[in-house]
Order: sequence, then C-alpha cells, then structure tokens
Amino acid sequence: MMSVEKRTKSVDLSHHLSELSKARPISPLKGLMKYFAQPGILALAGGLPSPAYFPVSDISANVLVPESFALSPTESSTSSMSWLWKLFGSHNATKEKTQAVTVPKYPVVKGEINLATSLQYGSAAAQGQLQDFLKHFISEVYRPAFEDWTALIDTGNTDGWLRAVTTLCNPGEGVLCEEWTYPSAIASMLPYNIKPVPVAMDGLGMKSDDLENLLSQWDPVSRQMPRPHVMYIVPVGQNPSGSTMSVARKKQIYDICVKYDVIIVEDDPYYFLQLGTYAFKDDRSPSATLSGKPSADESKQYVSTLAPSFLYFDYEGRVIRLDTFSKTIAPGSRLGWFTCNPVFAERLERQGETSAQAPCGFGQAVITKILTHWTYDGYIRWLRGLRTEYQQRRNFFIDCLAEEFHLHAVPAVAGVWEGCSVYQASSKVKKSARMTEKYSARNRTMFSFVPPVAGMFVWMRLHLDQHPSFVPGNEDTLETKLWTKLAENGVLFAPGWIFAANAIAEDSDNNDSGHFRISFSNAEFADLKNAVTIFGRVIREFFQEEDL
Amino acid sequence: MMSVEKRTKSVDLSHHLSELSKARPISPLKGLMKYFAQPGILALAGGLPSPAYFPVSDISANVLVPESFALSPTESSTSSMSWLWKLFGSHNATKEKTQAVTVPKYPVVKGEINLATSLQYGSAAAQGQLQDFLKHFISEVYRPAFEDWTALIDTGNTDGWLRAVTTLCNPGEGVLCEEWTYPSAIASMLPYNIKPVPVAMDGLGMKSDDLENLLSQWDPVSRQMPRPHVMYIVPVGQNPSGSTMSVARKKQIYDICVKYDVIIVEDDPYYFLQLGTYAFKDDRSPSATLSGKPSADESKQYVSTLAPSFLYFDYEGRVIRLDTFSKTIAPGSRLGWFTCNPVFAERLERQGETSAQAPCGFGQAVITKILTHWTYDGYIRWLRGLRTEYQQRRNFFIDCLAEEFHLHAVPAVAGVWEGCSVYQASSKVKKSARMTEKYSARNRTMFSFVPPVAGMFVWMRLHLDQHPSFVPGNEDTLETKLWTKLAENGVLFAPGWIFAANAIAEDSDNNDSGHFRISFSNAEFADLKNAVTIFGRVIREFFQEEDL
Repeated sequence: MMSVEKRTKSVDLSHHLSELSKARPISPLKGLMKYFAQPGILALAGGLPSPAYFPVSDISANVLVPESFALSPTESSTSSMSWLWKLFGSHNATKEKTQAVTVPKYPVVKGEINLATSLQYGSAAAQGQLQDFLKHFISEVYRPAFEDWTALIDTGNTDGWLRAVTTLCNPGEGVLCEEWTYPSAIASMLPYNIKPVPVAMDGLGMKSDDLENLLSQWDPVSRQMPRPHVMYIVPVGQNPSGSTMSVARKKQIYDICVKYDVIIVEDDPYYFLQLGTYAFKDDRSPSATLSGKPSADESKQYVSTLAPSFLYFDYEGRVIRLDTFSKTIAPGSRLGWFTCNPVFAERLERQGETSAQAPCGFGQAVITKILTHWTYDGYIRWLRGLRTEYQQRRNFFIDCLAEEFHLHAVPAVAGVWEGCSVYQASSKVKKSARMTEKYSARNRTMFSFVPPVAGMFVWMRLHLDQHPSFVPGNEDTLETKLWTKLAENGVLFAPGWIFAANAIAEDSDNNDSGHFRISFSNAEFADLKNAVTIFGRVIREFFQEEDL
Repeated sequence: MMSVEKRTKSVDLSHHLSELSKARPISPLKGLMKYFAQPGILALAGGLPSPAYFPVSDISANVLVPESFALSPTESSTSSMSWLWKLFGSHNATKEKTQAVTVPKYPVVKGEINLATSLQYGSAAAQGQLQDFLKHFISEVYRPAFEDWTALIDTGNTDGWLRAVTTLCNPGEGVLCEEWTYPSAIASMLPYNIKPVPVAMDGLGMKSDDLENLLSQWDPVSRQMPRPHVMYIVPVGQNPSGSTMSVARKKQIYDICVKYDVIIVEDDPYYFLQLGTYAFKDDRSPSATLSGKPSADESKQYVSTLAPSFLYFDYEGRVIRLDTFSKTIAPGSRLGWFTCNPVFAERLERQGETSAQAPCGFGQAVITKILTHWTYDGYIRWLRGLRTEYQQRRNFFIDCLAEEFHLHAVPAVAGVWEGCSVYQASSKVKKSARMTEKYSARNRTMFSFVPPVAGMFVWMRLHLDQHPSFVPGNEDTLETKLWTKLAENGVLFAPGWIFAANAIAEDSDNNDSGHFRISFSNAEFADLKNAVTIFGRVIREFFQEEDL
C-alpha cells in the first residue's frame, strides 16, 4: 500500500461544529466529576437501581463457531442449503455448530463483562472489554494516520450519521454525496434543512475530478448555499451501485478534502463484504487452499487485501468513520461505533447522552462476550466466512441472470460505470413470427448492470429508451409500471428513484433510464432463482419481447 | 376514582407539530408498501442479511421469579442483606431464585418471539408479542380515556422526551415544567433553543393555580416567546422533590391544559415506586397479609391503589406518556414506550427510523421473553415486590437520619412542600461549653426534607441562612462548599442547583437555601448508614455545631 503521512495529533477542526452541536451543554457536574471517580466513595448522587433488582441472573447464548462458513465457495454451506432443510421441515439452528457463552450478573474475574455493569446506566463511550476490543480492531484493520483517535459507540450507522450531520452542519448547508446514495441518509438530514449536493460517480465511486471542479467553482450565490464542508460517502459496496473505491481514488478524494477543508463521514457497513470480481460459472478458478482456522498470520494477510479505510490516509483527523455490527453480527444489534478525533467525539457523546444514551446493555453484553470469546482472530475468521457466503450469493444470483438472459459484457466509457465491464441483458427467448413482424428491434438490451465487487446489491439500469412506448420524460412512469408488474407477480425489487441523491439535479445523465436495486443478501437460493425466472417473464412481456 | 369523560377518537391536535417534525419525510415507499405485505412475495428489496448469518443460535437467561421480593418489609430481603453476603465473599446471584427461559433463532410456535425476527431490521413499532403485552398492560393499568391510542417503543425516556419535544416545539418556544426538574430533560431541549418555563410547586407537585395564572396572563411580548403549548411533567416521585400528584390535582391540571390547548408529556419512570407515607420505625404497623403469589385479583386490587396516569383523564388524546423499563427491569434495557394519539405516534415513529431505528433486538427479545414468561400478573407481582424493596430502602435511610439527627415534624404552609409534614433536622450532639459560648443559637435547623412518597430520592433543603457565615447571596457558595466537604470525606450527593429548571427564574423562593438530592436506590444498607454518619459529622462541623 502507498506510504502515507502520519501525525501524532489531529489538527483543530472545531470550526466545523454546528450551532446545534455547540449549544449542547456539557454536564454541569463536569468540574465535580473528579470526586465521582474516587475509589470507595459512597455514591448517593445518581438514580441508579441496585443490580439486585435486575431480574436476570445471567444470560447465555449458543454462539456459532468462527469457522462456521467455508472460506471457498462450496455447495454444502449452511446458508445456501438452508432452504432445503426448510423443505424437509427441520430447523436451520439444529445444523449450526455452536459453543455456549455466559454473561453473569456479577463478574467472576474483575473487569470481565457482566450484567451488573452492562445493564446499569452506563457511559456512552463503551464498556471496558468492548472498548479494548474496538481499539485493537481499529488499529489492526483501519490503521488511522493520526494517533489521538477515539472510539465511541452508537446505536448503529443511522444514529451515527444523524449525530454526525447535526454535529457538523447548520440549516441551509449542503452535504457532498454520491449522485446515487442511501435514501435514509438523505431522509435524516432533510428535516434540518441540510441538502444533498450530488457528485458524479464512475465505476470506482465518487469522481475526484468532479469533486475538485464542484468545490473550486462553487458559487454560494447561484447555489444559494455556502461551499459544502461535509461529505457523506459509502466507499465500499456503494449503496446502491455496488462499486468500491480504489486506493488511489481514496487518496485523491482525501487530498481534495484537505485542500477545501471538508470533513469526510465514511459510512462503511459493507467493508467486510468485499467480494472480488465476478466471473461466469465456467470461468471460475478454485481459490487458494486456506487453513480455515482462526490464525494471526491469516488475519494479517487477509486484512492487507482489503480496501483501506479513509482513516488510513487521515493524518489530520478529518474523517468520522461509521462502523456497525448490523451486517457482521445482526441488524438488531443496534450497535456500532464512531472512529474520529477527540473533539468531535466529545460532542457526539454529549448528543448520545440526550437521545438513546448508551446502546442497549443486553446487546452490548452478548456482543462483547461473542467477540472476546472468538478473539480478534476468530472474529476476522468469522468475517472471512461471511464474505465467502455473500460471494456465493452474488455469484449464484448473477449465474441465474446469465441463465435467464443473454448477457453481453461491454466496457463502459462514461457514466456511473465508467471503467467497468457492463453486462447488457437481452432476451434469450425466440420471438414468435407475429412479434418479429410487429417490432424490428432484435437483441435489444432491456437492462444492464455491473456485477458488484462488494455489498449486498445488484444495481440494475433499465434501458427504457428501448421500450416500444418510450417517449423522453416518461421513464419514471415506465419504471413504476414495471416495478408494479413485478410486485403483482410476486417479486419485490427496490425502485431505483428512491436512491437519487437529488431528484432535481440538472447534471443527471440518467434521463433515459430507470433503475432497480436487487438484494441477494437474504432470500433462500431457490427463491432467488425463482425471482429471476419471474423477472425474466415479466420484463420480456413488458418490453414486448414475448407474447402475452 | 372520580368518573371521567371517555371518547372513541382523539381530537385533531396536528397543529402542535413542529416545523422539524412536519419536515420529516414519509418513506417514499409508502404508496408501494401494500406489496411488501403480500404473503409469499419474493422480497429482494431491502438490505436484510439472512438470519443464517446471525452468529447466535439461541439466547437463554436465568430469570428471577416474580415473587423474588417480599410484599411486606422484611429484614431477610435479598437486597437489604446483600452487603452481608458480600462481606462473606459470596455472590448475590447464588441466592437468587430463577427460572430458565430461551429465545431460539427460529420460532417453534408461529408468532413467538425469536431471534431471526428480533435481530433483523425491524419495525420501530414493537414486535408482535411485546406489542400485545404493552397494549394489555396499558389498558389494564393506565386505562386511557380515548380509544385510538397507540403504543410505540423507544430506547427509553431520554430518547422519548427528545423525540416528543422536537416533534412538538419550534425553536424559540417554551415548555412548562416544574420549578425543580430533571436536568437531562432541560439539557435535551436547550440546544434547540427551546426554553423551560417553570411553574411553582407545592407538596403535590405542579400547582394548578399558578399554571392557570401563568397561562391566562401570558404576555408574549414581555416573555419574548409565544404562550407555551407543551408541558413536561414528572407527576409520580417527582425528580428531585419526590412528591406525587393527587387525583384531584391531575384532573385540574388536565382541564387547564384542555382550556389552553397544552400537550402534556408525562415522564413517569417512578410510577411503580409509589412507596406510601413514611412513619418512624416505632410507629409502623404491619401491613395486611398478602398471598405473595401472582394473581389476577391481587393485580386488579393493587393497580387500583396507584395514582392514575394523566392518560386516565385524557379524553382528547393530548397526553404523550413516556414509560420505561429502566427502573423496573434495568436501565441498560434502553427500552421504553410512548402511549399517545396515532397522529403524534406516526411522526415519532418516523423520527425513530432516522435515529436509533428500532430498540436493540437482543434487549427486546430477552425482555419480551421475561414478560411473557411471567405473564401480566407475574409482572405486576414483580413490580409490587420491587416497590416493597424501595419502601424498605427509603425507610432504612430515613431511620438512619432519625438516629443521626433530631427530627422535628412541622406542617409546611408555603413553598414547594406546602401541605406536607416537613422534617426539620437539628444536631443531637451536645455542644461543648466553648461552642455554646461562641454561638447563642440552639437546636438550629441545619436541613429539612419531606420523606418521599414515591421514587428513589430524598430532596433535602439546606437552611443556609442558619449558617454562621451566611450573607444573602452566598447560598451557592455555601452549598458547593458543603458538597465538596462531603465528597472529600467520601460521600457523594447530587448538588441541588443542577435541578433548578431555570436558574434565572425571578419568582424563585429558594433564595435562602441550597439543596441536595440523595439517592437511596443503589447503595448497600451498610453504606447508606455509613454515609449518614459521615454526613452528620460533616454538616455539624460545617454549621459549627461541633468542635473541629
């Protein structure tokens, strides 16, 4: 990896704090807190119940072993076969290889995770063992280029982003983001009158030249807002496009953000779902043989293959990285964390204290116990197995598309997929004589996509200009018409229009197309196959490639 | 209980919604949601991981039995003796009588709580069994006077209040509250430039005549804000004063709120810690014999003895009630719920979706399992036992004060304790000849308090005007001086000044006194005793009632 500048201390970026954030009071007890830390003090200040009144003596969990999932694609993986088990009426859980862990109310060893502490009112910063795990994890995996970074837990990236954007932005300001982005991120900021400022994308995500042009030519008068000083970005497994930013591009974007004093909020839920390049079934080569056991050497080697975080380049402390256990443990964890400079962390912590307070202690206890039981190397092994599972899912889903449609790979020279090999899909079904007579078009492309290199989604562009009743301006109508037809036939995709950062952006090049975002993360393999078959029938009918 | 008006539908109160709340987008998918609910649909829209990837096969907990705590004060209660066990090196948990419950990943019976659902991205409204439990609980215990109320879960009352106040108030507005109140509630609203408007209190909490006067005489010009349309109130075990509002007072306050169109946000964490009146040790009569087993009859009878919620009077749907499991299960639950009209609930739910999302699934699963295992009557039995525990703690703590000080009960005729019997504390220690010579005052009152009838706290007024070096204006200095002396001697109380709703309120009658809030909820009994002994020595020294 390229060498980067390192610094001991983050620079002072407190001028980025919003009025709202600055107005959040510091606890009036701050000056008195030294007394609270006195060992053996008789504390009758807070409204803390006695742990004797917590009605849980201990919590136990049967936890999957870290090597639950194979490291190379295999047909016998738990998840890909689970639909089969379901058919035969048995429960998946019975096939899971587990080990029992217990969190007692009172710790047997001092400092060990326990319910008396984790179910008590707690510091928003994270409890001892979890804080230790996260610090080790961050320094091994993300290796921030500044030393005084802080890890602060939150209730997941939705909470993380809301807290970050209201900590940094005043009403009337704008946030730089990819032209297609996560709708919930936009929904969080709009009520505060903070608006998205879309930047063009190519196959590697946000374009650095467009970003530079946008910032250098920013005119506050015509734009009716000051030059943005905050960026929201999903650099790995971009949602919805599935692209992943290269090392060089990340460095370029970071340097531009230094030049124009922009804070980067890196929302990275799919970081450990880096799936590699898709190849057709027959072109796949077997992967290298791996031990399959957690090991420090393999952890180190694996981590070095991952795209670096923005933190890796962050010698100034201008990155707020958002991590979550939603995709690696479970969404219901509602547990994630910020990695950022201590000044921002302090404001984010104050905000947490007046909203969700600390994340749920049941969740913190169970997850901390899982992580410390697995150890760092075990967790990395778990993440590697999970990656392979999603790789298999992606491969299976695109294999299904390749069976259902004629896929033709062409290099994209412009647009959001510039630099990528784009798969154009046309009908495999022979048209009837009547159809051929009616329409002259042959092998018309109905949709195209780039197999995602990370994440959970295929981002599909519909070639609506190829539709018999296309007239410029009716793309939305056609997209919704097709979406509704699919839903009526039993298949739900996410409609593409909800991912447009700015529906009214004038520089959009998407004026001849609708989009679908299709998730391969959850459905049983048989259902994925079934969905593609239905999709094939409905889209051919829609494009009138097939008789009704 | 007095008869109240009942209505089927809440009235339209949507004019109370803040600009921020109105600006929160409804999901763009709203119109399409009917398809999402189609049974058997192949859903490839959301970014949901497969439950096969949740690394937990099941969670088990050893749960205390509902009858863990006695219904009549007893010296053998688990908690009051736990310090003894600690002395002898055993863990409290070993004495707890528990039953095992398990939440499996996949449900054995359809609709039963399971991890596949509760650890998935979930509706912010609450999962089936929990929603059912809450609805039954609300209709049995709070009996709202309007029928179309909604129960919506949140991550506890801190989150609940932040969401309520930002749903209802615009910057520059004010919120009616008790003159002494929970500091965190004020800290939540101040950054949004929403200010507290203190209303005078007496021994029953907020005064209805003062509220009426304040609202009827409101002058937006001199007050520099519109007439408040939102009230924040802690009617049971008021924090910090410990008072509980009577039925008649609640009805008066509700009627005034109807008259002036005020929304009542009822923050009620101490509802189940209604402790009854304190009596000196020798004056206590043994309570009636009770079965000690969960039973429908006893639940009904017990619930009827509790102060009614504002919901009981709420025929219009103008109450947002905040409930929490923090005090009844554990603070680390981070689980609570709103009960309110459906229009407010919809806006509060949207806000949840862009912050913490649903509360933690681990917590929801475990707590739902505990509640359904206990059943409604078991939970009521648990709450009754808990009440008795806190009653014993309050009694023990005040007994300690009675041993350490000379307590003299006098009726209060004005001020925050109007209508109550106030205990005035003076020194029991005989002064030395030198001291008697130096100061003529005898039996001077050093502090006073009203034994709380609910909650966790003794709210202590310091008679600083009795201090030898008192001069009007130096109360804050004296309060902090005594607080610091106590802390240096190993005892932490909460300083009173942090509970002032409005430090700059001109109508404050507290100009000759400081305050402490003392919690009896958490410390071992031996530590409570020890703390009172140290407090006695330090305060006598401070008032120069004792030689140094």
